[in-house]
Amino acid sequence: MAQYVYGKNVVIQMLKDHKKIYELYVMENSKNDEIINLAKKDSVRTIFISKKEMDKMVLDRHQGVIAKIDDYKLYNLDELIDSIDDDRLPLLVMLDGLEDPHNLGAILRTCDAIGADGVIIMKNRSVTLSPTVAKVSVGAIDTVKVAQVTNLTTTIKDLKKRGYWVCGADNNQALDYRSVDYNVPLVIVIGSEGFGISRLVKENLDYSVKLPMVGKISSLNASVATGVLLYQIYDKRHPLK
Amino acid sequence: MAQYVYGKNVVIQMLKDHKKIYELYVMENSKNDEIINLAKKDSVRTIFISKKEMDKMVLDRHQGVIAKIDDYKLYNLDELIDSIDDDRLPLLVMLDGLEDPHNLGAILRTCDAIGADGVIIMKNRSVTLSPTVAKVSVGAIDTVKVAQVTNLTTTIKDLKKRGYWVCGADNNQALDYRSVDYNVPLVIVIGSEGFGISRLVKENLDYSVKLPMVGKISSLNASVATGVLLYQIYDKRHPLK
Repeated sequence: MAQYVYGKNVVIQMLKDHKKIYELYVMENSKNDEIINLAKKDSVRTIFISKKEMDKMVLDRHQGVIAKIDDYKLYNLDELIDSIDDDRLPLLVMLDGLEDPHNLGAILRTCDAIGADGVIIMKNRSVTLSPTVAKVSVGAIDTVKVAQVTNLTTTIKDLKKRGYWVCGADNNQALDYRSVDYNVPLVIVIGSEGFGISRLVKENLDYSVKLPMVGKISSLNASVATGVLLYQIYDKRHPLK
Repeated sequence: MAQYVYGKNVVIQMLKDHKKIYELYVMENSKNDEIINLAKKDSVRTIFISKKEMDKMVLDRHQGVIAKIDDYKLYNLDELIDSIDDDRLPLLVMLDGLEDPHNLGAILRTCDAIGADGVIIMKNRSVTLSPTVAKVSVGAIDTVKVAQVTNLTTTIKDLKKRGYWVCGADNNQALDYRSVDYNVPLVIVIGSEGFGISRLVKENLDYSVKLPMVGKISSLNASVATGVLLYQIYDKRHPLK
C-alpha cells in the first residue's frame, strides 16, 4: 500500500537519503528548485499539479510538495530488541495511549537526536505512523524503529524478563527525574495527553519519575516532557567531561 | 474585542481560576457535567448549541466547549520587566520568528512549569496569542506574561543595559548547554522552526548553546528544544539537594 508524505523539509530529507519515492508531486509555478533538482538527480518521477489537486490529496498543509512512498515500516517487539547492538545500553520509549500525531513526530525526532533504540506503541489504542507523523518527525520516522504490540502489560513483563527496567513518567509517588540512575537497560513509559499512564501499566512499572513543576499548570506537553526526560537520560549516560 | 477559546481542559482551567467568561457554549447532549457545574457555580451564562453551530464558530477541534472571553493581554517590555520581583533572578524567553501556535502554546506551558518570568515575541513577524495557543497552553497563556516588541535587536540592546545576558539556542559556534552558568539575569533566544535565529539577532547574542545531537536529524522540535534548555536552567538554578 502506498502513502503520501508532504512538506518541504521531510521530502528534502527523503531525497537526500535516497529513500524510495514512487512519484513526487510538485505544485505548478511554485519555487521548489532544490527539491526538483534533487529529484532529477535520483530520477524520481516528478509530476506538476495544481494547488487544488494537491489539497484533494492531503488535507493538511503540504507546502506544495507531496511524495508517494511505501507504507511506513512497523516492527514487532522481537525485531526491535534483536536490532539493538549487544554492546549498547538499550533505551526504549513506550507510549501508553498517546493520541496526537504531532507529539509522536516530535518524540521520534528527539529519539533520533539522543540515540534511543526505538519506540513501542500499542495497536488500536494510540496514534500510529502517518503522513502527519512523518512530516513532524522531519525524517526521524525512517531512522527510529517503531514496534507495534497488542498488549502493553504483557510487553512490559516480557521486557523485564529480558533485563529491562521499566520507568514511568508520572506525577504520583514519583522520584525527581534527576535523582535516578539510568545506566540500566531501560524502557521509559509515557502516558496519554489527557489521562497519563493507564492503571494496569502503572501497576507494572518498576518506578516513576517526575519533573519539577513550580507553576500553576499541572502538566507539560507530552513531547516536551519526553524530551526533557530523554535528555536527562542522555546526560546521565554521557556526562559532560 | 472578544475572542473564543475552546477545548475541555483549557475551559475547565479558566473556570477553576474564575477567569472572566462572557458566554460559555456547550454542545447539546454532550457529557460536560464538570464544566456545566463549574459554570453554574460562577454564574457563567451557558448556552447549548448544536455541533454544526460550534464548527462554524471555531475551525479547530473544540471538544464541544467554547468560551467567549476578552482579548489576550499582551504587555510591552517595560511592563514585563517591571513585573518581575526584585529578589528574583529573571529568566525571559525571546522567540525570533517562531511560526507554529502549537510550539508557542507548549513553550508557555513549560515557562509556567519552571517559573520563567515571561516570553518576548516580535510584532508582525512571529506567531501571536490566539485561541489555538490558548488551547495548547492549557491555561499557561494566562499565567505567563507575553510582551510584544517591534524590534528584537533594539530589545536585546535594551535588556543588556539592564544587566541581562542574552543566550541563543543555536548550533553554530555554540557551547554544550550543560556547560554554562545560568545564574545571571537571562534571556534565552529561540529561532524559527525553519531557519533558526536571524542574522542580526545572532550578532547581538552574548553566546549560544546547543544540545548534543547524535542521530541523523539536524534539529529538534522548537518547543522540545526550548523545554530541554529551560529545564537545564531550572536545574542549574535549583540543583537537587
